[in-house]
Amino acid sequence: MSNPQDIYSDYKEKVDALITSSVSKNIPATLYEPLKYILSNGGKRIRPMMIIFACEICGGKMEDALNAGVAIEMLHNFTLVHDDIMDNADTRRGLETIHKKWNDNVAILTGDHLIGLAYSYLIKTDSKNLKGIVDTFTEGIIEVCEGQSFDKEFEEKFAVTIDEYLMMISKKTAKMLETSAIIGALLGNGTPEQVENIRNYASNIGLAFQIQDDLLDITADETEFGKKIGGDLVEGKKTYLLLKAMELVEDEKDKLKIMEVVNKELIKHDLEERILTIKRIYEDYGIIESAQERIKHYTELADKYLNTFPDNEYKERLKWFSGMLMGRSF
Amino acid sequence: MSNPQDIYSDYKEKVDALITSSVSKNIPATLYEPLKYILSNGGKRIRPMMIIFACEICGGKMEDALNAGVAIEMLHNFTLVHDDIMDNADTRRGLETIHKKWNDNVAILTGDHLIGLAYSYLIKTDSKNLKGIVDTFTEGIIEVCEGQSFDKEFEEKFAVTIDEYLMMISKKTAKMLETSAIIGALLGNGTPEQVENIRNYASNIGLAFQIQDDLLDITADETEFGKKIGGDLVEGKKTYLLLKAMELVEDEKDKLKIMEVVNKELIKHDLEERILTIKRIYEDYGIIESAQERIKHYTELADKYLNTFPDNEYKERLKWFSGMLMGRSF
Repeated sequence: MSNPQDIYSDYKEKVDALITSSVSKNIPATLYEPLKYILSNGGKRIRPMMIIFACEICGGKMEDALNAGVAIEMLHNFTLVHDDIMDNADTRRGLETIHKKWNDNVAILTGDHLIGLAYSYLIKTDSKNLKGIVDTFTEGIIEVCEGQSFDKEFEEKFAVTIDEYLMMISKKTAKMLETSAIIGALLGNGTPEQVENIRNYASNIGLAFQIQDDLLDITADETEFGKKIGGDLVEGKKTYLLLKAMELVEDEKDKLKIMEVVNKELIKHDLEERILTIKRIYEDYGIIESAQERIKHYTELADKYLNTFPDNEYKERLKWFSGMLMGRSF
Repeated sequence: MSNPQDIYSDYKEKVDALITSSVSKNIPATLYEPLKYILSNGGKRIRPMMIIFACEICGGKMEDALNAGVAIEMLHNFTLVHDDIMDNADTRRGLETIHKKWNDNVAILTGDHLIGLAYSYLIKTDSKNLKGIVDTFTEGIIEVCEGQSFDKEFEEKFAVTIDEYLMMISKKTAKMLETSAIIGALLGNGTPEQVENIRNYASNIGLAFQIQDDLLDITADETEFGKKIGGDLVEGKKTYLLLKAMELVEDEKDKLKIMEVVNKELIKHDLEERILTIKRIYEDYGIIESAQERIKHYTELADKYLNTFPDNEYKERLKWFSGMLMGRSF
């Protein structure tokens, strides 16, 4: 079973099983029911996989990274539950969000609780690097909060630069993957050099991943993407593409269309047509290409860092993994 | 300066200074402004003091416990910020709550962020007991979330037993003091027996403290208490006194008055008079005395555990400390 896809499926099953067994309590019901609900709500378990693969490439074993994998997945779910409250989101992975199915209070507590549970799994290790592991995880939480704050601030702010955007996504999206990679490497007793290289690999993949997410919002096939096209446009999210459009669009008519998005005035009437207009503008001004180039840039950087490791099956797994992330339709 | 009151003031100043210096960042402003606001909002720093005094009585030094003191105060403030959203509270320590002054999203993120910051201070230690310390802190978070969930569930539930109430406050209130005591003892390299004794001391003080808080809601002097009398009654909180009244009150007219509170139907009109009526019922049925006896019971239990330690200045400090907590007017 050296096929990376099979390895991934096998590890994912193990992570899922451990996540399911992690919640044995039933009361208080308003805490444990939503917790079971969110944790069984699928997901690709990308961050646990990053921890395991990073551990392996540094010489560690999958088994040593499983608990930390569960920890990072819980932490990721904490961000989803609280972000969904803040973004007023009704569904997540096709199911009702917790604040919608229960209420805001339940969702706040479920998120808080997930942080506690996450740490309880993180420290289930005999690693001599415990302090560094807890430190990395904690820095991850702090930066994710900063990233989410910037994201919410940018929604209300007119002028956001591409640099500010990159800083924001490096905290909000890339940081969790980076955190996973460092923790995996520490669990695998990687050398400081290995830790640094795998960290840079993950953070660049994270940046590429987010810009691709921005791109998919306008170019994806709705059925494969699993959510409505143009959602970011409706919310007036400062995506890479929107910021680039604000920079490049010159035609007054086109400019007005872009400003409708920026000012969150995209009228719901004829929404599909309006989204297609924005897509046409993005195409006309080479903004789609610009995003694709950025994605390529960060993917190549990630490859460069991954290639500091010798060729072996563990490197193959990570190569397959980044390929899967970047070729995703989810 | 062996006077416990002076020691307390001196240590409190050190804790406050470290808390102030803990937040040096300014952006994102929607994250760091409310953070500075809540952390400079005073408070008696009871939990940091418990950590320091517990550390000292086990043979450790104040300096070794300061960072953990900051950590537990941050964690405590996380619970305040999120509880205030859930309880729809407008003010806290005489100032506007964060969700009121900013908004719910800002308050959610400020609380989340405080958890991360708390861990970052907790692990600033060379203690060989790091794993136990992080484990204890984490268990504290989990139980506090459970306690808050039970508290919210009980608000909507008609029949709550005194045992259920005690279980709830042991998680919601006592657990933070217990967590502080264990962490202090671990930082002071206490023996397992010492850790256990100081843990029991703190958890009993915590129970006494909460029942006294319930009692003060109806018997306190408003100016000294710092908040409106009868607040728990208006909210329909299942306090020790209300549950005891549900058990003991027999007169039909009195029963109706109690049911108005239980059913959250306490009419705002003539509120002061209505609160005085409840107070009269509490007095008539010996409910005030029953609460006082419970407080005495837990205070004496706490003393018993404290008295397993030899007489010295550190024990004196903790005796003074429990006395201050129980004789408080805040």
